[in-house]
Amino acid sequence: MQIGIIGLGRMGGGIAKRLMKHGHTTVVYDQAEKAVSDLASAGATGAGSLADLVAKLDKPRAVWVMLPAGKITEETIETLSGLLEADDIIIDGGNTFYKDDIRRAKALKDKSIHYVDVGTSGGVWGLDRGFCMMIGGDKETVDHIDPILEALAPGLGKIERTLGREGDPIRPEKGYIHAGPPGAGHFVKMVHNGIEYGIMAAYAEGFDVLKSKNSERLPEDERFELNLPDIAEVWRRGSVISSWLLDLSADALYENHDLTQYSGQVADSGEGQWTIDAAMEEAVPAYVLSAALFARYRSRSDNTFGDKLLSAMRHGFGGHVEMPQ
Amino acid sequence: MQIGIIGLGRMGGGIAKRLMKHGHTTVVYDQAEKAVSDLASAGATGAGSLADLVAKLDKPRAVWVMLPAGKITEETIETLSGLLEADDIIIDGGNTFYKDDIRRAKALKDKSIHYVDVGTSGGVWGLDRGFCMMIGGDKETVDHIDPILEALAPGLGKIERTLGREGDPIRPEKGYIHAGPPGAGHFVKMVHNGIEYGIMAAYAEGFDVLKSKNSERLPEDERFELNLPDIAEVWRRGSVISSWLLDLSADALYENHDLTQYSGQVADSGEGQWTIDAAMEEAVPAYVLSAALFARYRSRSDNTFGDKLLSAMRHGFGGHVEMPQ
Amino acid sequence: MQIGIIGLGRMGGGIAKRLMKHGHTTVVYDQAEKAVSDLASAGATGAGSLADLVAKLDKPRAVWVMLPAGKITEETIETLSGLLEADDIIIDGGNTFYKDDIRRAKALKDKSIHYVDVGTSGGVWGLDRGFCMMIGGDKETVDHIDPILEALAPGLGKIERTLGREGDPIRPEKGYIHAGPPGAGHFVKMVHNGIEYGIMAAYAEGFDVLKSKNSERLPEDERFELNLPDIAEVWRRGSVISSWLLDLSADALYENHDLTQYSGQVADSGEGQWTIDAAMEEAVPAYVLSAALFARYRSRSDNTFGDKLLSAMRHGFGGHVEMPQ
Amino acid sequence: MQIGIIGLGRMGGGIAKRLMKHGHTTVVYDQAEKAVSDLASAGATGAGSLADLVAKLDKPRAVWVMLPAGKITEETIETLSGLLEADDIIIDGGNTFYKDDIRRAKALKDKSIHYVDVGTSGGVWGLDRGFCMMIGGDKETVDHIDPILEALAPGLGKIERTLGREGDPIRPEKGYIHAGPPGAGHFVKMVHNGIEYGIMAAYAEGFDVLKSKNSERLPEDERFELNLPDIAEVWRRGSVISSWLLDLSADALYENHDLTQYSGQVADSGEGQWTIDAAMEEAVPAYVLSAALFARYRSRSDNTFGDKLLSAMRHGFGGHVEMPQ
Repeated sequence: MQIGIIGLGRMGGGIAKRLMKHGHTTVVYDQAEKAVSDLASAGATGAGSLADLVAKLDKPRAVWVMLPAGKITEETIETLSGLLEADDIIIDGGNTFYKDDIRRAKALKDKSIHYVDVGTSGGVWGLDRGFCMMIGGDKETVDHIDPILEALAPGLGKIERTLGREGDPIRPEKGYIHAGPPGAGHFVKMVHNGIEYGIMAAYAEGFDVLKSKNSERLPEDERFELNLPDIAEVWRRGSVISSWLLDLSADALYENHDLTQYSGQVADSGEGQWTIDAAMEEAVPAYVLSAALFARYRSRSDNTFGDKLLSAMRHGFGGHVEMPQ
Repeated sequence: MQIGIIGLGRMGGGIAKRLMKHGHTTVVYDQAEKAVSDLASAGATGAGSLADLVAKLDKPRAVWVMLPAGKITEETIETLSGLLEADDIIIDGGNTFYKDDIRRAKALKDKSIHYVDVGTSGGVWGLDRGFCMMIGGDKETVDHIDPILEALAPGLGKIERTLGREGDPIRPEKGYIHAGPPGAGHFVKMVHNGIEYGIMAAYAEGFDVLKSKNSERLPEDERFELNLPDIAEVWRRGSVISSWLLDLSADALYENHDLTQYSGQVADSGEGQWTIDAAMEEAVPAYVLSAALFARYRSRSDNTFGDKLLSAMRHGFGGHVEMPQ
Repeated sequence: MQIGIIGLGRMGGGIAKRLMKHGHTTVVYDQAEKAVSDLASAGATGAGSLADLVAKLDKPRAVWVMLPAGKITEETIETLSGLLEADDIIIDGGNTFYKDDIRRAKALKDKSIHYVDVGTSGGVWGLDRGFCMMIGGDKETVDHIDPILEALAPGLGKIERTLGREGDPIRPEKGYIHAGPPGAGHFVKMVHNGIEYGIMAAYAEGFDVLKSKNSERLPEDERFELNLPDIAEVWRRGSVISSWLLDLSADALYENHDLTQYSGQVADSGEGQWTIDAAMEEAVPAYVLSAALFARYRSRSDNTFGDKLLSAMRHGFGGHVEMPQ
Repeated sequence: MQIGIIGLGRMGGGIAKRLMKHGHTTVVYDQAEKAVSDLASAGATGAGSLADLVAKLDKPRAVWVMLPAGKITEETIETLSGLLEADDIIIDGGNTFYKDDIRRAKALKDKSIHYVDVGTSGGVWGLDRGFCMMIGGDKETVDHIDPILEALAPGLGKIERTLGREGDPIRPEKGYIHAGPPGAGHFVKMVHNGIEYGIMAAYAEGFDVLKSKNSERLPEDERFELNLPDIAEVWRRGSVISSWLLDLSADALYENHDLTQYSGQVADSGEGQWTIDAAMEEAVPAYVLSAALFARYRSRSDNTFGDKLLSAMRHGFGGHVEMPQ
């Protein structure tokens, strides 16, 4: 099957390569000409502009937009929607906020252009392992691009099947899912990331408790100097908390026991915040997911104004002095 | 009434002075001779040792121990219990862990010595305003020392009475309470401090949200530069969140809008932690009180090892780089 | 000064009465004719419609809209904006989301109509105690309606002045503040409510720890049966955590020790959620304020699907059985 | 190697069987005679009492105690310590609090009896998959019982090795670790469980957000009816949050989409609480791990007294009525 791909960064480039490896045809465009020519020499048809890309695709066209979420994606889809025709398909593979998907799909429907949102997990490993994809859109359109999606997905692989699942594996067993109407793909991916933050924070706090078991605050006979790389390792083997994130932690801790190469100022990319927004709209308590997000905020700031206010109150009622040293 | 006082720091000294002002007799002791002589010149009987203090008191003796919680209080009470006789009374006015009270009261009961624990709130303001006291002990003993307690307490004052409370004010309306058997006083005081942490954290977070409303993260037309001292001021007048802690915040913010004199590294004194311990023993969710405590821990540390582990995982799955700058 | 008031419920009616008591003139309108006639007999000029109200006001008109936030307020202001003329003033005294204020103020500015947002705290007590008001708008407009605002505010009263504040009291000392441009009033009020949730939750958790100290989970000699009304009472007198919310708690606990008249299903009115939204936009950690909000969500639901998933996982790895009984 | 096993429940029985399968010799005891005779017919030597078990073991003896943590384990080890001789070994394989291990190891050292604590993860799956073990004790003793430990552990298996780990696999790669002196094994296991609670809560909250995306609180065009079993399934394939706990969730959700067989009242077994205790002793913020624990407390209670107090305050300041229906 033929597909246009806009945005040839780490993710977009990986997608193009994996599709070509599986026998699909790609027409590719990026603002960086070198990204286009590199892929062209790997078998893709290069395009010099959005219009050129559209012109080089057969009808009904399918165009995969793989750009940073926000302004650039919004503008590109806006432009594309002027170039495409009825029955064409726009696929947004970025980290778009799902309400933007809902809005766009409605607007494009007026032109009979189909809109598909694809949330993708798997990071830099996707090219090799395949991409785990959560997809929103109308059924016929998703079915139409199924060959593309199946090629990108990891497939059944060696992972044991869930108890009771038998026969031909369905899409989710192959690593992609048609989650619902437009927006549903990015919504499920958003919650995925919310959970990701929570799990990461659980490990982070736990390893902090292990690390600080050697603290001088403790009575001497209650201190342990623990080997964190080996603990991460042992938990990978038969423990209840084995996971891919633990595998990655074991890699990192083995490489550098103290993780001194990291500043500990941790970014967040929007989905964590949106997950809390969604939880609040639904009146769902999200203590853990919000705490995980706030820990990232806190990691990026020095002592807060609020902390100073605490000191000020303590000075006020108790005469406590907490001054800069 | 006559009472012995051990420990003449800010709190102990204040107690002695307030009692003498109300016509009570004090025998005082402190390791620092100057503290003893200062109070002696204000009317107290000075003592040169614990034994001397005990010798100078009439039977049945009442001794108020006002020392830092922990080892020094423990040792002093141990020594005292060897010096005192049946029917004498030991009062621990410090911030002792209530389970230590329960243990001590049991041990002293074997010698027919009475044990009273008094948790005190009001900080440096107590000498003037009176001390808010939460008391544990057996009924007769607490009744016996009631004149002392009433003199230390703030009294009914100008605070409006609670709806329905009429007639002669009971002890709690005068600012002291016999909360229950030994340990109950410090237990109630401990929970008081747990709540205090929570309330302080609520203000701290709220003022942070106000302060950061001017952040460059926000779209320019959604930023406000807010006057925090004036906001604290206005909330003191008829708002739902008026409180003494807000009064103190208003004082501090008016003095220094940016609180630059504070480092923002906030101490905790044990009661917050014990409150969470108690909550866990009772299986009571304590999300807010624990978060308030953890914020103090966090305020005293640089980026945690856990934060670095987050960065390490992000590097592992996404190639994100979060290095020291 | 003359003012129009739309919406004569508990708050709007109280505002009209308090203004008339202070010598101001009111033109009032409500969908409920009875509310209008009641106020008319108390001295107000009644109006039969928005148009009638506008007609009865002198130019430049000032109209205070005191309706539930959301659709009804939005529509009323929309209609008003068609009836009013340049230099007239619309005041939204409800609990409007501050971004709606920013949007409206911009739209009305095109017609040279001024927009003022007033966040009000003090609840049902405001008529007597005065309303604590947080105001957004341009300086001239706020100054123009100052007589109205001052009449509604509690005034300096008997509350002690903040350390260092001297001379003629400024607005915040009289209980109202011009916080900034349109939206700033409701923003400050929103954070006020966020803090309110946090403080309330701190008391709630603390009293839970006191109440459950009698739990059968605990060793018998560590249980206390505590008198919660009296503890609330004593904390009102000289303790660090005295506050108006504690006063109200003391009232309620004295009336009914076990609070059996309440279901414990606690509503939230939007500001708590918006405060968390604001915190996230600013990247401010809001552990306590969010936990306080989530506790309200949780109080309104039975066991969650997430709880069941926990049981399911426990069954999966440990064979634990947690069935409905 | 020969070993005595006390306690033949699910875990102890599984351990005995797995050891015999690997060629080790067992002497077994349980209060339930049937448990002893069953294992005897599977090749073990049955014992009729602790004394009998001790008599049937060769010196230096090694005895594995596999009983519920607390009183029964404490008493059994007390009795054993009277029956055993210098150089014998007691292994506590239960969920003992690590400070009890430290205390016991010190006491037993006076009799030259060695004490080893083994924290075990893997639950009911351990018999087949092998047990992930975290071990505390002195080096020689742990080395002495290494054949037993290696037989119980899962071994290297098919799990990919951590980047950089080469050559003969060390113990942690085979699924067991000598974590440190007595107590260190149970400490690491305790933190493991703390993390487990956190991860489980992250999934629970996330699936709640997915489930409630169909809530009537939401605008109709923002609702999705999501297929949770299929979402759990797709996340198992190449997503960042794949884990064994997710595998178990996928099993459970596939079997019963709504998990109606569970009450949602979730137990906790002590380690979560102890982890928070440890964090507080170390002054490590543990927002996520504590929230996960509190959610279990909350799941087991009806509306709390604290919730009612919130309603009471709301009634006090706003006249809100939240009554039982």
